[in-house]
Amino acid sequence: MKLKKSPLAPTKFPTLPSVKGVNIGTSVSNSKYKRRQDILTITFNNPASVAGVFTLSQMPAAPVQFCKKNIVNGYANALVVNAGIANSFTGKKGIENNRLIASYFSKLINSRQKDVYICSTGVIGEQLPVAKIKKALKSSFLGRKKDFKSAAKAIMTTDTFPKASGKKIKIGDEEISIVGISKGSGMIAPNMATMLSFIFTDANIPSVFLKAILKKIAVTTFNAITVDGDTSTNDMVAVFATGKAKNSKIYNVLDPKLQEFEKALHRLSLNLAKQIVVDGEGAKKFITINVIGAKSNVMARNIAFSIGNSPLFKTAIAGEDPNWGRIVMAIGKTEENIVAGKIKVKIGNYLVVDKNKVADDYNEKDLKEYMKWDSINLEINLGIGNASYTAYTCDFTHDYISINAEYN
Amino acid sequence: MKLKKSPLAPTKFPTLPSVKGVNIGTSVSNSKYKRRQDILTITFNNPASVAGVFTLSQMPAAPVQFCKKNIVNGYANALVVNAGIANSFTGKKGIENNRLIASYFSKLINSRQKDVYICSTGVIGEQLPVAKIKKALKSSFLGRKKDFKSAAKAIMTTDTFPKASGKKIKIGDEEISIVGISKGSGMIAPNMATMLSFIFTDANIPSVFLKAILKKIAVTTFNAITVDGDTSTNDMVAVFATGKAKNSKIYNVLDPKLQEFEKALHRLSLNLAKQIVVDGEGAKKFITINVIGAKSNVMARNIAFSIGNSPLFKTAIAGEDPNWGRIVMAIGKTEENIVAGKIKVKIGNYLVVDKNKVADDYNEKDLKEYMKWDSINLEINLGIGNASYTAYTCDFTHDYISINAEYN
Repeated sequence: MKLKKSPLAPTKFPTLPSVKGVNIGTSVSNSKYKRRQDILTITFNNPASVAGVFTLSQMPAAPVQFCKKNIVNGYANALVVNAGIANSFTGKKGIENNRLIASYFSKLINSRQKDVYICSTGVIGEQLPVAKIKKALKSSFLGRKKDFKSAAKAIMTTDTFPKASGKKIKIGDEEISIVGISKGSGMIAPNMATMLSFIFTDANIPSVFLKAILKKIAVTTFNAITVDGDTSTNDMVAVFATGKAKNSKIYNVLDPKLQEFEKALHRLSLNLAKQIVVDGEGAKKFITINVIGAKSNVMARNIAFSIGNSPLFKTAIAGEDPNWGRIVMAIGKTEENIVAGKIKVKIGNYLVVDKNKVADDYNEKDLKEYMKWDSINLEINLGIGNASYTAYTCDFTHDYISINAEYN
Repeated sequence: MKLKKSPLAPTKFPTLPSVKGVNIGTSVSNSKYKRRQDILTITFNNPASVAGVFTLSQMPAAPVQFCKKNIVNGYANALVVNAGIANSFTGKKGIENNRLIASYFSKLINSRQKDVYICSTGVIGEQLPVAKIKKALKSSFLGRKKDFKSAAKAIMTTDTFPKASGKKIKIGDEEISIVGISKGSGMIAPNMATMLSFIFTDANIPSVFLKAILKKIAVTTFNAITVDGDTSTNDMVAVFATGKAKNSKIYNVLDPKLQEFEKALHRLSLNLAKQIVVDGEGAKKFITINVIGAKSNVMARNIAFSIGNSPLFKTAIAGEDPNWGRIVMAIGKTEENIVAGKIKVKIGNYLVVDKNKVADDYNEKDLKEYMKWDSINLEINLGIGNASYTAYTCDFTHDYISINAEYN
């Protein structure tokens, strides 16, 4: 089926700064999609520092296995992405095809294989047409004068809009750029093995610090979103730092100079993560679930996701129904040690649950008005501690069923 | 919305044996539904042995809290059920209303309150109209000459057909009857706080043995089903044994005389559980997920439910799409220690996944034919042990969204 652009999509593609030392190429491989830019090659003038976080799936795709091995070295000369075929669950042949592509491209750019990162996204179980991809890689590399918008478009699969975010900040006195692109619609879409995010900066930051920051940030950004609770075989987030900005050297992850970078990376990651939710399959509403007053962040997170993954809750939001019974149900089904009588639930600014029952001044009419907005906020105050967590999700609509029952 | 009968519903209501010592009354309370039998009272000629299993929700409804307290005594003089309002998340008033009903009915039948079991099912958050219910309880009790079919109908909420199962078996030389009724559509339906199953037998079995058997059986029957992974605040299964059949006394849970009873109770419970799935909201296909070759039953169960609760898997089945990529994804997203290369996945009798890739003789055409059936079997052989588990679920359709987004 033809996918319509998400009604929640941003009205325009953001203006992005350039990132020194990053060269972008795209091309058409004609492998799964016909006559569409589906190959992205990013090459770095000099080896970039790199850090990544990967899917927790027990069955990672061939390229994920490859990148996980390489990333311990901490350097990258290139990133190669193909969209359309995920090279996931493709057996020994899939691993060999991944190796052939890595070998071909690393020779082309005169790099060690272990400094090249290969990502695939698309249908599970199909083999990559290696010859077609090699050819496209070459033309992509030769024409490496593209912009981040072309890059964001080249990695799309069922995405209905290209996703990017970027800005300039300072590290010490030096101005640096940071730009990220993402794809993914559905936390995971199905045979579409799914979420990829690549972030580029010209800051000079060793990979060990990048890794520490990225791991910390991912918890409240890329790992704070859910579309359907399913987990992709291909999910990957990577940060590449070219070091071309010549900021003064960083010797310590706690270096105060890194704080603004961390904040910027957090904001950018959250922005990209939210764009993925916004493009959730069939999404008509963006939902923020803020759990506060918990005994631990893990407790808050479990409850936030129990709500965010509940089909009953998500269909209620789709129906614009302030159905607090389903929120209560989703809180109750976790194994967390909550105290029912202490829980306060707010939808928007309206208190709906208090003291184990519907709030005294609950006014269904006001709530129903609120539910018509395309961005819905929940606040669950557990009333037993100071920890919190915020998760982001979308509603569950007829279009989700159509996209996933009719997708082939 | 008006619900159509599930296309998977049995063609007719089963013929059931009578159970000695069980008196059934139903009546109309006009509380949530208008002019519909919505009250069930079951009274026992003499105190029956009773055992129960309850929802694991951290926020059980008032009647569940009440029954959990009573059941430690092990005796029952009556069971009272109202359909339409769940008395869940109704605060102190809900607890008080439940007490008022229990007190009224126990006086009416001259029983201790703690030998009376109250169950409510229906919308969450609404208070019971106690006066209406008292009146209906009295007329139900006075007209206690109804059959199990009337009982099964009186407890329905969004169910599209009444659910029951029953048979005669022998304990030793004595013939005994065993009959169960259930309600529930959606493992939990939403503000419909949901699954109730009541099983009656005239066998003479002490409650302590009933409890041991029920707990064991529930794992592979009532707890082996999922419609949407959500958990009700009101779920309860109870077995009542009137002892009127005069089988020889049972002194031990391992008594061989109990074996046929256990088998019959298992079969009956599985039958009821499957009927609940068949009536899953919007269900068009019944799905059996059989995980074998696991290291433990828990591992097998976690994987079976990861598949059975995956919206992506369930929408694929709705779309009659043999999308093994989504099965693999759902296996991969558990934290179980599997070995990807050892997993074999069968859909029906067709091997689809083997050695980390699609099976060599995979034939999509055959599979697509198979997917048109209304009962679909999966077999996941993990290839690393001897433990197994079977879960039952249904597909995820447009009607699920309609029912749950438009339900009010």
